[in-house]
This record gives sequence, C-alpha cells and structure tokens, in this order.
Amino acid sequence: MPSPLVAIIMGSDSDLEIMKDAALVLEEMHIPYEIHILSAHRTPFQAMQYAQEASSKGIEVIIAGAGAAAHLAGVIAAVTELPVIGVPTKSSYLQGLDSLLSMVQMPGGIPVATVAINQAKNAGLLAVSILGIKYPEYREAYKTYKKKLEEEVLAKDKKLTTKGWQAYLEEKKK
Amino acid sequence: MPSPLVAIIMGSDSDLEIMKDAALVLEEMHIPYEIHILSAHRTPFQAMQYAQEASSKGIEVIIAGAGAAAHLAGVIAAVTELPVIGVPTKSSYLQGLDSLLSMVQMPGGIPVATVAINQAKNAGLLAVSILGIKYPEYREAYKTYKKKLEEEVLAKDKKLTTKGWQAYLEEKKK
Amino acid sequence: MPSPLVAIIMGSDSDLEIMKDAALVLEEMHIPYEIHILSAHRTPFQAMQYAQEASSKGIEVIIAGAGAAAHLAGVIAAVTELPVIGVPTKSSYLQGLDSLLSMVQMPGGIPVATVAINQAKNAGLLAVSILGIKYPEYREAYKTYKKKLEEEVLAKDKKLTTKGWQAYLEEKKK
Amino acid sequence: MPSPLVAIIMGSDSDLEIMKDAALVLEEMHIPYEIHILSAHRTPFQAMQYAQEASSKGIEVIIAGAGAAAHLAGVIAAVTELPVIGVPTKSSYLQGLDSLLSMVQMPGGIPVATVAINQAKNAGLLAVSILGIKYPEYREAYKTYKKKLEEEVLAKDKKLTTKGWQAYLEEKKK
Amino acid sequence: MPSPLVAIIMGSDSDLEIMKDAALVLEEMHIPYEIHILSAHRTPFQAMQYAQEASSKGIEVIIAGAGAAAHLAGVIAAVTELPVIGVPTKSSYLQGLDSLLSMVQMPGGIPVATVAINQAKNAGLLAVSILGIKYPEYREAYKTYKKKLEEEVLAKDKKLTTKGWQAYLEEKKK
Amino acid sequence: MPSPLVAIIMGSDSDLEIMKDAALVLEEMHIPYEIHILSAHRTPFQAMQYAQEASSKGIEVIIAGAGAAAHLAGVIAAVTELPVIGVPTKSSYLQGLDSLLSMVQMPGGIPVATVAINQAKNAGLLAVSILGIKYPEYREAYKTYKKKLEEEVLAKDKKLTTKGWQAYLEEKKK
Amino acid sequence: MPSPLVAIIMGSDSDLEIMKDAALVLEEMHIPYEIHILSAHRTPFQAMQYAQEASSKGIEVIIAGAGAAAHLAGVIAAVTELPVIGVPTKSSYLQGLDSLLSMVQMPGGIPVATVAINQAKNAGLLAVSILGIKYPEYREAYKTYKKKLEEEVLAKDKKLTTKGWQAYLEEKKK
Amino acid sequence: MPSPLVAIIMGSDSDLEIMKDAALVLEEMHIPYEIHILSAHRTPFQAMQYAQEASSKGIEVIIAGAGAAAHLAGVIAAVTELPVIGVPTKSSYLQGLDSLLSMVQMPGGIPVATVAINQAKNAGLLAVSILGIKYPEYREAYKTYKKKLEEEVLAKDKKLTTKGWQAYLEEKKK
Repeated sequence: MPSPLVAIIMGSDSDLEIMKDAALVLEEMHIPYEIHILSAHRTPFQAMQYAQEASSKGIEVIIAGAGAAAHLAGVIAAVTELPVIGVPTKSSYLQGLDSLLSMVQMPGGIPVATVAINQAKNAGLLAVSILGIKYPEYREAYKTYKKKLEEEVLAKDKKLTTKGWQAYLEEKKK
Repeated sequence: MPSPLVAIIMGSDSDLEIMKDAALVLEEMHIPYEIHILSAHRTPFQAMQYAQEASSKGIEVIIAGAGAAAHLAGVIAAVTELPVIGVPTKSSYLQGLDSLLSMVQMPGGIPVATVAINQAKNAGLLAVSILGIKYPEYREAYKTYKKKLEEEVLAKDKKLTTKGWQAYLEEKKK
Repeated sequence: MPSPLVAIIMGSDSDLEIMKDAALVLEEMHIPYEIHILSAHRTPFQAMQYAQEASSKGIEVIIAGAGAAAHLAGVIAAVTELPVIGVPTKSSYLQGLDSLLSMVQMPGGIPVATVAINQAKNAGLLAVSILGIKYPEYREAYKTYKKKLEEEVLAKDKKLTTKGWQAYLEEKKK
Repeated sequence: MPSPLVAIIMGSDSDLEIMKDAALVLEEMHIPYEIHILSAHRTPFQAMQYAQEASSKGIEVIIAGAGAAAHLAGVIAAVTELPVIGVPTKSSYLQGLDSLLSMVQMPGGIPVATVAINQAKNAGLLAVSILGIKYPEYREAYKTYKKKLEEEVLAKDKKLTTKGWQAYLEEKKK
Repeated sequence: MPSPLVAIIMGSDSDLEIMKDAALVLEEMHIPYEIHILSAHRTPFQAMQYAQEASSKGIEVIIAGAGAAAHLAGVIAAVTELPVIGVPTKSSYLQGLDSLLSMVQMPGGIPVATVAINQAKNAGLLAVSILGIKYPEYREAYKTYKKKLEEEVLAKDKKLTTKGWQAYLEEKKK
Repeated sequence: MPSPLVAIIMGSDSDLEIMKDAALVLEEMHIPYEIHILSAHRTPFQAMQYAQEASSKGIEVIIAGAGAAAHLAGVIAAVTELPVIGVPTKSSYLQGLDSLLSMVQMPGGIPVATVAINQAKNAGLLAVSILGIKYPEYREAYKTYKKKLEEEVLAKDKKLTTKGWQAYLEEKKK
Repeated sequence: MPSPLVAIIMGSDSDLEIMKDAALVLEEMHIPYEIHILSAHRTPFQAMQYAQEASSKGIEVIIAGAGAAAHLAGVIAAVTELPVIGVPTKSSYLQGLDSLLSMVQMPGGIPVATVAINQAKNAGLLAVSILGIKYPEYREAYKTYKKKLEEEVLAKDKKLTTKGWQAYLEEKKK
Repeated sequence: MPSPLVAIIMGSDSDLEIMKDAALVLEEMHIPYEIHILSAHRTPFQAMQYAQEASSKGIEVIIAGAGAAAHLAGVIAAVTELPVIGVPTKSSYLQGLDSLLSMVQMPGGIPVATVAINQAKNAGLLAVSILGIKYPEYREAYKTYKKKLEEEVLAKDKKLTTKGWQAYLEEKKK
C-alpha cells in the first residue's frame, strides 16, 4: 500500500459525517490518505506530535476540520511546514460563523488555507490541486473532475431548456 | 518576593497596552503575578510547557489575552487544571468579534472564563474574586474596590444633580 | 449533608434543560450545590438578596444562566464578591448571540466569567477548576476528568484507524 | 419649580454627552425632568430604589441610557410600572450592537421601549409623545416640532432645486 | 362598547399569529382596542390615512408589527403624534435581525418604541404602562400582572428546590 | 412564439425551486422569457458567452440567482450592458447573508440590481417595471398587479375587523 | 431643456455628498435628471405625492438614497410602477448594514433594486442600463463607459508590470 | 531571470498597498513571481485568459486579492487547476466581512484557499508551504522563517520578564 500523502484530522467524531467528503474525493482521485480524530483541546500533545511528525512520514498536505472555537487547524499549522487546509464545521448555535472566524483569521506567520463552512469536499479538491503541482497525474485528475462538473451543468441546462422548468422540477422531486 | 499567584500571558507584544490593565489591578490588590509573551502559533511548545508547569510553580489563575483567531486561552486551558481567564483583544478588522468567538465558544470539557473585548481590567478583577475564595484578604480587597466604584458613581451623581449637566459636561471636557 | 459550595441560578425554568448539565458535572465530582430559578426581571429583589447572602451561606461560586437580554449574571455579579460564571442560553430568534453579548460585554469593574452558548457543562467544569485552587480533591477530580476525555478521543482515533471511516460511521448511526 | 415628569438616567458619565440630547428636547418642550447617573452594576441598590420610588415622586416616564452589556433599562423596568425608554449607547468595540441587543431583547413581561443607537433625542421625543396622551399641551408641542421638521426638509429641497447640488454642497461645507 | 384606546396594526396576516399576543394582553387588562391589517407597501395610502386619523378617533397608542424591510411602524410614526410601539417580526431568512434594524434605527425626529423580536406580548404591556400614566386602573392592572409574574417564578423556584431538578424536568416534559 | 425579453439564469438546479417564482410572474404578465442553468464557477465560459450575446438575441433584462459565494450576477453584469437583477438565494449555513453580500456589494462601475434573499418573485416584478418604461402594456400589467395586492390586503383587513382575530386565525389554519 | 428621465431623491441633505455621484454619472451620459430632498419620515406626504406623479411627468427611473432605518426607497416603490433603485447610505453606527437590510429585504410585490452601500455611482449606472433598453444612445454610452473602465485597468496593469510595484506605489502616494 | 512560480493578482490598484506583503514574502524567500492588476468585473476576459494560461507558463500557485463583492479568486479558480489563494481585502463599509464571505464560501467543486482579511503576508507564506512540497529549498526557507518568528517572541518575552512591562511599553512607544 502506498504511503499516505494527505492526512485528514478532525477534532471530534461528530465531524466525521462532514469530513468523510474529503476522503471520498481523495479516494476518487486514487490519492493515498490517512484519517484521524485528534483534538487541540482534549489531546493537545498527541495532535501536535502528529502534526510535527507528519512531514517526515511522507504526508504532504494536512486537512483539519473543527467547529465552534475551532483551534485545531491553527495549532497544527503552528508546528508543521506543510500546507494546512482548514474546514470550519457548522457549530450548533452560530451556524459555523464562529468556526469560520476562529479558523480563517490567523495572525501573520501561520496561515491556514480555509474553505467554506462544512465544505470538506473542497478541502479534498484543494489538496488535489496542491499535490497537482508535483504529481502531474493529480493535476490531470482534477482537470477531468472539473470537465465532468461542466458537463453535468450543461446536461442539466439542456434538460431544462428542452423539458421546461415544470417538468424538470417534477422529475427532480421524485 | 512572594511567589506569583497569577500569570498574565499574551500572544503578542501588541496586546501589552491592553493586558497591562490586568497587571495594574493585581498590583493595586497586592497580588503577586508574572507576565509573559507566549504565542499559541509562534511558540506553541513553550506556551504549552509554561501552562503545564504553572500549577506546580504555585500559579493559581492564568489570564490569557489574544486577538483575531485567538487560540491562546484555549490551548492553555487544554493543558492545565487551573482556571483560565480569556481576554479577547480587538483585532484590526472585525472589532474583536472574531477574537471573542474564538475564545468563548470552547467545546465541552475545556472551559475558558471569557471577559469582554479588551477588558483586561475585568480579567484582573475576576482573578481577584477567584483567589478570594481561598484568601480572605483578596475577597476583602475586592469588596473595598467595589465600594469605591459605588462611591465614585454616587459622587458623580451628586455633582450632576447639584451643578446641572451643562456645567458637568463643560468641566469634564477640560 | 454538606453545605453547598456552588449555586446554579437560572432566569426561567425553560433554561433548566440546559442548566442541568452544570448540576450533572458537580454531582459527578461530588461537589455540593444548590439550584434556583430567580429572574433579574421578574424577581429582581429576590435575585439580588440571594446573591448578596450567598457568600455568608458558604457558597463560593455562582453559576447563572439566562437568554436574550440576559441580565441575570451581571446583576448578580453586581452584588457579590464571589466569582460569577455566566451561561448565555440560546434565545429563540438570534441563536444566542444576544445572550452572549448581553453577558460577556460587562463594563469595567464587574466581570462575568462567560462560557460558550448553552455550555452549562463547561460552567460546571469552570466551577470545579476554581474550587480546585482551594480544595485539592477537586483539582484532582478535574485532572481525572480531563484524562478521561483524552482517553476517549484516543480510543475513538484507534477505532477509526483500525476499522476505517465507513465502518465507524455505520456503527455510530446505529 | 414644577415637579419633574421625566427621569433621565445613565449608567456612566461617559454617556452624558449622548444623553444630554434627551434633556435638550425636554427643555425645548418645557417638560420638567431630572437627570441622574446610576449604574445597574456599580450602584444596583440605588438604581433600583430610585426606579421603585420614581412613580410616587410624580415621575411618569423614565429614560435610561447604557452601553455594552446594557442592563440598566431592563433592571429599572423590572421594578417600576412606568414606561421605560432605553437608549443603547455606542460601545467602544462592537458599535452599539451589543448595547442594542442587551436592551431590546427583553423577555416577556418586562418591556423596554428601545430607540436607535445613541438616539437620545428620539428618547426625549418618545417621552413627549407618551406624555402627550395625558397633557394636550405636549401633544401640541410635538405636532409643532414635527411641522418644523417638515418645513426644514421642504426648505432644503427648495434650496437644492433652486441652486443646484454643486452650489448646495459648497455652501454646506463652509 | 367603549371606544378603542389602542390600535394593533400589522403589515400582513402572516403576522397575526404573533401579533395576537398583544391583543390577548389588552383583553386581559380590559383595555379596548382595534386590530387591522394595513401594509406600508401594499396599502400605503390607507395605512397613512388610518394613522393620521387615529388620534381624532380616540386611539392613544398604536402598536405596529412587521417583518423583513419592516417600514410600517416608521411610516405610521411619521404621520401621528401618538406613541408608536414597533414589533419586529421574525423574517424567514435573517431571523428578524433585518426587521429589528429596520424598525429600531429610526432617524432623529421620528421615534419608534421598539420591543424584542416577535414580542407582541411586551408591546401590549408597554401600551398598558403608557396608558397607566393617564388611567390609574391600568397602572394597577400592570402592577398586579407583574406581581403575578413574580409569584409564578417564586412558586417554580420552590417546586425546584423541594422536588429536585430531575423530578421537575420529568414533570415538565409530561 | 415571440422572442424572449427576459433571461432567468441560475447557478445550480438546486436554485430552481426558488427561481421559478420569477418565471411565474413573467408568465402571469405574458412576458416571453428563457431560463438557463449556467454557473460562474463550473461553466464560466458558457455563462459569459451567454451573457455577452443576450443583448443581440433580443434579451432586455437578465435575472441571475445564486447562493453562498454568489458570483453569477456580477460575472454576467461584467460582460453585458443590459440591466442585471440579482437574487441572492439562501445558502445552507449562513442563511443567505453570504449570498446577499456577495451580490449586492459590487464595486463601482458594474452594478447588480439586488432584491431580497430568495425573492425571485420580486426579481420578476422588477423586470416587469423595467420593461414597463418601454412597453406600456407591461406598465399597465404591473399597475393591475399592485392594485390586486392592495385589494387583497383590504379584503383581509375587512375580514379581520368583521370576524375578529380568533375566527380569522382559526379559518386560516384550516 | 429636456424633460428629466431620472429622479434622484434622498432622505436628508447629509446624504447629498454620497448621492451626487449618481448625478455625476447621469451628467456624464447626458441624461436629464432632477434631484430632491424628500423624507419618508419627515415629509411622508410630499415624498409619496412626488413618487406618484413622477411617471406622468416623464420620469422613467427613480433613485432613492437613505440611511439607518432606510424606508424611503420602499415607500416610493409602494406608490409607483417605475423601477426604483435604492442606495443604502452608511449610517453612523452600524456601517450601513441597517441601511442595506432595511432597503433590500422588501416583501413580495414591491421590489427595490438595491446597490452596494454608498454606491450612488452604481445607482446612476444601473439607471443608464435600464434606460438603455429604450434609448440606444444610452446603451452605447454605457458600453463606452465600460470600455473605458477596462482600458484603465489594462493601463494600470501595464504600468505595474513595467515599473514594478515599488515604483507604482511610490508614484501613487504622491 | 527564472520563470515566475507564483502569480499575484489583484482586482484594483487600491489593493496594492495590501497585496505587496505577499510579494515581500516571496522576495525574502527568493521565489520568482509576477504581479498583475486584473479585475473580474472590469476586465473579465483578460482575467480569465490569464488564469487559464498561467499553468502552461510555469505558474504553480495563484494569489488573488479583492474586496467587497470579491469575485476575482473564485472566477480564477473556475478556470485553472492550480491552487488559488484568496486574500479578502478590507472593504470600506463592512470591514472586510463581505470580502471574506464572498471569497471563502465557494460552492462544491471550486475551492479557494482563503486567508485572513488583509493577510497578504500569510497568502505569500501559504504559497511558500505549497511550493515546499515540491521544492525542498522552499520548505527549508519556511522552516527558517518560523524559527525566526519563534526566536523573536522568545526574545520579547525575555525582555518583558527582565525589564518589566512599564519599561517595555515605554521603550515600544519611542
């Protein structure tokens, strides 16, 4: 089995339902990854040790998801030179605004590459585009992925203009 | 010199102008403290080691101030059993709302006792009230402090009702 | 029965479902407490009298929960030297942002140790850490609690890396 | 001297520069008033006692101004049957949003008639319109005031359409 | 039948479920009122004419409820000298924040006495307290109402301290 | 079949349920339109080409709906001289506030005529009023539409004042 | 002098400094316009009468600017079939967020074409693009305007790539 | 001269003062870059063409800065497989919240790696960490950079603990 290139970390298993979308993208692109539950608050030493050693284990991109006072991505970014992608997960009461601001507003020196609230899929794709600068096959894979997205939209547009919106909506609801 | 009971930590020396207000309160109450610049992002290991050892050095309350993606208080709370008071400092662009949410919205298990944006004075007073449960002299000191606050307001009210608001405002502007 | 060390107060019995989490933590730690419904707006005199007398009855920490224009914690903090922990409860329309700002943004002189929206569990734990500076058994109890949190996360991580996320998620949904 | 019909209360003399606008309106309308500095947090007993006795002293409307965690109007409304008008004053960091939410979001049973951030003038006018239901001379005074507002706008419009906007702006800048 | 003293107006019948709470308070206090659907946007002339004539028909307080770009209360306040109470109703997408700001942030000259989002009950009570400055029976009625609120809270507190929170919660859920 | 005067474009078929309200208004007014799914992000070239050619095909108004980082309307406005109406659709996590700000806050030079969150009906009506400056029959149609709105409100008001709110509400719930 | 096609209305002469940008655009395009100060709150009857008669006087587009509880555009849209463009002006305390929400969140039936906070220039350009569907010369004028914008950006880019950013910035600061 | 690896693009030369911080980081690390002014709204075709061809010219990372309705990064990400880093620049009225949400909330399929408001320095560092997965010298350079950050903080802490905060502050103010 190939050594993992991407690490997906989340602060709690309540984020797994969201963060699995990053895993699905990486699997679709045949990019080896590993996945962990490690908390900046409940297992700070293990989280930091993991992040510190990631690079020497061959990891090239880290994806970190957390919610509310979402410190995980920042704490990991503090101890690694790898690019760290942050996924602010929707918190229970403020809809993820707290998670987003906790993650994206990093001070000078320690960036976190933040994607949209709950957008673990985009975190996966961002990892693909980053790896793409080194591995041409992943750049190609991402090109193909985007081509597919385009074709899906065009197919939907064709269906809409052919059938009319009433029929389209009815079919969609089924 | 007595061993410090309170530690005041801040993530950057740009917060010192704010955080000194906590020091001033502790000095006024004759509570020994120490003060440090330690960043969750730029010196994560030193910050965590400091927090971990604080209790064994005799520290009983930690005050942590940070801004923007303000992770310092949370990271410290993760590695100590001492009460941790957080001061969200005003960030440049979102007026401290990011700092506040990053600090107060801690997940279950790891509380941070958060005070108002830039209210390092109140962080100092909260430390006094916490120490007051163990040291009667500090409880008394806080009582005296609050009595003084009350008297100041009453004196101002007397002046206002005696002189009228026009004279009061003019005198204030001088 | 031992005299209560902690008072849990809430502005309305609609907050009880949330505030009971503070009680559960204190019970788990064997810390005696009492619990009351007292409103800053509907029973202002009783709330203030209660808070004023709390200290002389042996109470050492007060936890106050309220929502919307959440004045309870501030009004209580105004009349006691004890540390007051505030739990902003989720209001019906603004998701607790109004509760949070009403509670945390206290003016200089009267701090409220605010925790996250609806995080009465953390209010309980903060009370434990405060009492821990005086009662070594509570500090130990909090240490044990945090150790348990850590172990739970590590056990979940082990399960995730062993079984894979698909199996983990399926099992979780059951 | 006639007995005051309106009480203007503020939590701190830093609000006087704003709250004086309410006094100016009442003076213009020849409505007797008194003005006080009384804090919900620093002088809670005096503030409540004042509010409780206001009605028996002949006060018919209370205007209360406060900022940040602005509890004053709510605490006063809790202990009087008089209408209480709240002026949320601009706080230093969140532009008065915290003041506004702390004041307007009162729970069922205890209303505060809230006006715009820093709009003490409107608080004065609202007091006039309330008194107007009992004292016809104040209703007339408010009618005259609004007529004057209308005439001012119409005069400005005439000037603008006559002179053109360039000349209007130049003159205004002088 | 006595002539109505209060008018309850709403911009749409979708607000009736909320605004009826104002009517219920007035009925409980035996205050005659009338209730209308009149929109600032769909029936602007009728809304303004109604507000202009309200005073001469004996109306002494107007309560206006509206949501989203909630202009009704402001438009009514523009054409009457009566006190106008505004109820910002919860809009579909922004939880009533748009309604609140549209209503409370009135410019100098034209105040709207704004209550909390969806708090038509408090709008009713504010009308009672305003009428109370002229009609002693309504002031008494409001006093009695607040006394009842106080007694309800005290009874709940007694039940909570007697039965314990577990039993209280179980009973409440039934 | 007459050549379409209005184009309704949306970034994803998940917006169709909302955007169909614009189509319904245009159908009611007998205004020919066409409807497309074209994404600023997934089919940027097609979206821009469509917008660039719209004018020469006889389109006179473009309605564009999109959510979250809602770039569609802005990108379209960049490449056409036609008036572009934007409908910010409710995003999953921030209730459409992100969509609204992404759409309305266009820089100088490239306006987007933005309507309320999810208000595709108003986008349709705005298109009608714009076409009305050229086609008198559409101005008349909009007049008739507004007259109908007025009559509906007046009929509801009559029903409410005749039947009372209790009966009105009961009937409405059926 | 040609009859005005556009009316620029503002609620207060404090908005003139902003709203003049719309006038400047119309002058640049040689589009006749008239400009007025008319307030929804201080001169409601005049504002409504003006808007009602605008169409019969030959006005084809109305631009309305207002701040805070910004009702002017909505009140005008209520009484005309012309397209109404709203400019939310920056209010003193909430940075125009209140103005924006008060203006854009119009209920179904009465749209306001809202542009960015303080973007009166874009309101002018939107008027041009609307008039452009009827008057080919204005469509051409807008095309030319956009072409000029493009050329300005390209010239700046050329200068930046030729001189380097240091020289560019230095020159700009002069 | 080596072929540029990074492209820095901004929507307007008013962003240059901010965006130059990314250039400074890249220069410090000896990473070749190019810098352009290209607007998603004023030069949409040139911006897209540039982004489409960037990869074939040897560019490996694109940094895009824009404010308000900040579409530039999203539009560029739509047409390239390269990683795109977004810098939301502070807009005039909403402090960059609109820029942030417009940039970070990208829909599934097209990620933008967003950094903090105005944090072009962090955008530069993120580019360095991404290039570091391919070019070991840049990873080393980033390590050295972070080491320097750490040492600076430790030196400041030493100075603070040695001199005391009063002397530290005084010296800083000079």
